[in-house]
Amino acid sequence: MAQTPKVAVVGLGSMGLGAALSLLRAGVEVVGCDVSLESRSRFESGGGKAVSSLAEAAHGAGAVVVMVVNAAQTEEVLFGADGAQGVLKRDAVVISSATMSPDDARRLAGKAEQAGWHYLDAPVSGGSVKAAAGEITVMASGSDAAFAVARPVLDAISVTVYELGDEAGIGASYKIVNQLLAGVHIAAACEAITFAKKLGLDLEKVYEVITASAGNSWMFENRVPHILEGDYRPRSAVDIFTKDLGIIASIGHKEKFPMPVATTALQLFLATAAAGMGRDDDASVARLIAQVTGLDLPSKNM
Amino acid sequence: MAQTPKVAVVGLGSMGLGAALSLLRAGVEVVGCDVSLESRSRFESGGGKAVSSLAEAAHGAGAVVVMVVNAAQTEEVLFGADGAQGVLKRDAVVISSATMSPDDARRLAGKAEQAGWHYLDAPVSGGSVKAAAGEITVMASGSDAAFAVARPVLDAISVTVYELGDEAGIGASYKIVNQLLAGVHIAAACEAITFAKKLGLDLEKVYEVITASAGNSWMFENRVPHILEGDYRPRSAVDIFTKDLGIIASIGHKEKFPMPVATTALQLFLATAAAGMGRDDDASVARLIAQVTGLDLPSKNM
Repeated sequence: MAQTPKVAVVGLGSMGLGAALSLLRAGVEVVGCDVSLESRSRFESGGGKAVSSLAEAAHGAGAVVVMVVNAAQTEEVLFGADGAQGVLKRDAVVISSATMSPDDARRLAGKAEQAGWHYLDAPVSGGSVKAAAGEITVMASGSDAAFAVARPVLDAISVTVYELGDEAGIGASYKIVNQLLAGVHIAAACEAITFAKKLGLDLEKVYEVITASAGNSWMFENRVPHILEGDYRPRSAVDIFTKDLGIIASIGHKEKFPMPVATTALQLFLATAAAGMGRDDDASVARLIAQVTGLDLPSKNM
Repeated sequence: MAQTPKVAVVGLGSMGLGAALSLLRAGVEVVGCDVSLESRSRFESGGGKAVSSLAEAAHGAGAVVVMVVNAAQTEEVLFGADGAQGVLKRDAVVISSATMSPDDARRLAGKAEQAGWHYLDAPVSGGSVKAAAGEITVMASGSDAAFAVARPVLDAISVTVYELGDEAGIGASYKIVNQLLAGVHIAAACEAITFAKKLGLDLEKVYEVITASAGNSWMFENRVPHILEGDYRPRSAVDIFTKDLGIIASIGHKEKFPMPVATTALQLFLATAAAGMGRDDDASVARLIAQVTGLDLPSKNM
């Protein structure tokens, strides 16, 4: 890893921070970049170097890991006024990890390749705990050259890299299929746990029984504890799912592909955001249902 | 177990057959009862004794395990023309395992207790493979006396018995919460896998990636292989979910408790049943979506 050129990690949210810290631990020269002072400080207090200027971060880097929120921010990072274009050297690799539509991934890859860079369509999964441990999963597609340049970076930040195809758009497609399921499962977990409350059940016991039964999901197991603790600090926010299920709904609309369950889950996330909880934990859908139906869920002063 | 009195298992579908065979292996005197000759033959070819008359099965039994489809059939078994009433002895236990509304469970428990029986509200989870191995999960509620009489039977047929409360209706409530999740997760799995097909992805690879990601669910992992093999022989049928999600939707309506995701999943199961697949495997929701949208899923001559 000592020969790995400098890596810029753009976007020091929980996923980007975890990736940046993992690179640091692997002995890679890494610069974090975020507009938020608070995010930069978190990385700095972990021993990292963080800057607010993308041009400064990209200067001399061999790889840029873009862990921002969406395609628009990714495009701004790469081609905006203070972006990588004109600074990031030829043959560097852009590791693009925001969840976006396959069309956006293909379009950004085309522009990146025109700029002389390799582009890896590389959305990630795993959440902040795994990110901090360098144990996320990467759903990647791109050219052999993009994979080759990106490899040491991927090795440092992830435990599994799925190589899903040789062009951009494929990684993005896998990720949105995952997000469809994840979003529906969160909404279903929130409906089920509030329904259980309505039925007068012991919610801790419901959690125990369901996680051992055929009704279990990764999301039920992971998110319901937030509800049981009444703790809606955002590990992952409602607005992530209004965005990701929004991408899915919009592809469905464009391609005339009906997804009634996913789009209904989207409506629940939209309602939760509309009620002022967009930046709270995505399990807040349960709070919305409880508010509407007059149920008492556990709550914690936050 | 040698002192366990005779047990009647009513309803020799996959769950009842598994329970009956498990009791047989445990050395319990067991009589299976089913109106279907084919179901009786399956139990007989496993070494069991099976009859078509409920009265004959219930005669002299200390426990009746009722593994039929719904509350109406359970009521018929207990109180119908050829039912247990007048035959099944006092202090026998009725182990009632059909999925039904908590109200129905309470009502049937009341009638059973009036008839001099103990009643255990004891829906089960686990599927046919676990049933055959005596490894199902039981979500049980009822009086201490009901549990005491039922205990040797439960021990023989299950790996876990959740003791959820001291009256009927509680077990049923846990079960329908599980079914809400299970039904939504099957519908979501079918939407996701057909969406993945629409996006041009390799479905085997999608299965590999999703089952290792946050989008996974017990049902995705269990049912998607049916779709990948194009094998829609019913391990569990679409009509089970039109029934169970129907119970949930109807409680929601009565109690004014909105469940948009669960009721949308119900609509998909209803559409699949309407298209003639009600008795096929519940993963047939994917076939419905594929038919409507013109996608080619794997198919096998059946």
